Amino acid sequence: MPTLVLIRHGQSQWNLENRFTGWWDVDVTEKGAEEARAAGRLMRERGLEFDRCFTSLQTRAIKTLHLALEEMDRLWLPEEKDWHLNERHYGGLTGLDKQDTRDRYGDEQVHIWRRSFDVPPPPMEPGGPYDLSSDPRYAGIDVPQSESLKDTIARVLPYWESRIAPCLKAGERVLISAHGNSLRALVKHLSNIPDDEITGLEIPTGQPIVYELDDTLGATDRYYLADR
Amino acid sequence: MPTLVLIRHGQSQWNLENRFTGWWDVDVTEKGAEEARAAGRLMRERGLEFDRCFTSLQTRAIKTLHLALEEMDRLWLPEEKDWHLNERHYGGLTGLDKQDTRDRYGDEQVHIWRRSFDVPPPPMEPGGPYDLSSDPRYAGIDVPQSESLKDTIARVLPYWESRIAPCLKAGERVLISAHGNSLRALVKHLSNIPDDEITGLEIPTGQPIVYELDDTLGATDRYYLADR
Repeated sequence: MPTLVLIRHGQSQWNLENRFTGWWDVDVTEKGAEEARAAGRLMRERGLEFDRCFTSLQTRAIKTLHLALEEMDRLWLPEEKDWHLNERHYGGLTGLDKQDTRDRYGDEQVHIWRRSFDVPPPPMEPGGPYDLSSDPRYAGIDVPQSESLKDTIARVLPYWESRIAPCLKAGERVLISAHGNSLRALVKHLSNIPDDEITGLEIPTGQPIVYELDDTLGATDRYYLADR
Repeated sequence: MPTLVLIRHGQSQWNLENRFTGWWDVDVTEKGAEEARAAGRLMRERGLEFDRCFTSLQTRAIKTLHLALEEMDRLWLPEEKDWHLNERHYGGLTGLDKQDTRDRYGDEQVHIWRRSFDVPPPPMEPGGPYDLSSDPRYAGIDVPQSESLKDTIARVLPYWESRIAPCLKAGERVLISAHGNSLRALVKHLSNIPDDEITGLEIPTGQPIVYELDDTLGATDRYYLADR
């Protein structure tokens, strides 16, 4: 039976500072690094084994993966890094303090940007300090100006279908280290969660989420590893 | 013009303890980790950029790569890990203290095992404490019982030809983090070093070695990055 484990990166510097992050490449804090190591130790204690790992092009997810794998003595596992697993692009809100943004745009507007399914934040200003369109890691990629959760799902799922699902169908055990919204995209798909519910689903940092899947990748169980 | 950089992992715990290591999976020391970070900072300062990284299945080489890439803000680069880049398998000497081994077998015999081109050390005892044949990372791989440098070259070069050379020929800039003997194999090949000279070539830990290559991957220059 294929096994899939999802893990959201440990606390990042901008989680801590309460700023919109999106595609900006913020590191994990020491607390975040320890969350990642604890996740690795937990997976090791429970005897979880993997054949392949996937992560985004963002340091906080990659480091979370590496720190967890190191605790499992599994740094040697193959890993694929891809922008399709990146966090939702927060557009023009990137870098802003969340409270400042509420003060400026109002609570209701900020709530819509954060929790609506299909309303993207305002677009990133080209050439601004958080514009990543000339970052070499995104060479050849049409970096979004902003994304709703719906937009995020629309680029996560084709990657899931083309790269991850075939591995699971071939019997591989897969670990994915990614972000709140790219993981929401996967959980929505695997657990059939409606549009208006998925936006409220909180995915805690550093908590391995286990999916047991049948041969057609239908979810037969989903749980936090720490709860079993 | 294709660029290739080779880096030998930073000091490992058994480098420090003067024990034969080979395929045994020993971590880097804090000094080794700092060597790796310093290599990354040096590559960053000199403006080196890469498109793809290769490393072995051994933690000390993988961590050296990751620590260097982190300093370069390039953790997102694609990386391929493969046993063909592993250290020479030290057979039955694995785990032994080098001085104890000299006391037991004599200086001359140990010198032959360490520095001859084609004499492998005695074979690994199956089922012993350092037998890796049932390690999951080597599933499906016929783990050698012992390797001479010649044996090591015989598995490094086909991997070079099939996986690394095509990337360089396609114009990619490549970073390889590996081991004393798997790097000797590459240096011998690229710099046409005779059998009886390559065994004496010392490759220092954590020092990026730059190869400038022509379009047919002939070496036009080779130097330590720190020297330029």
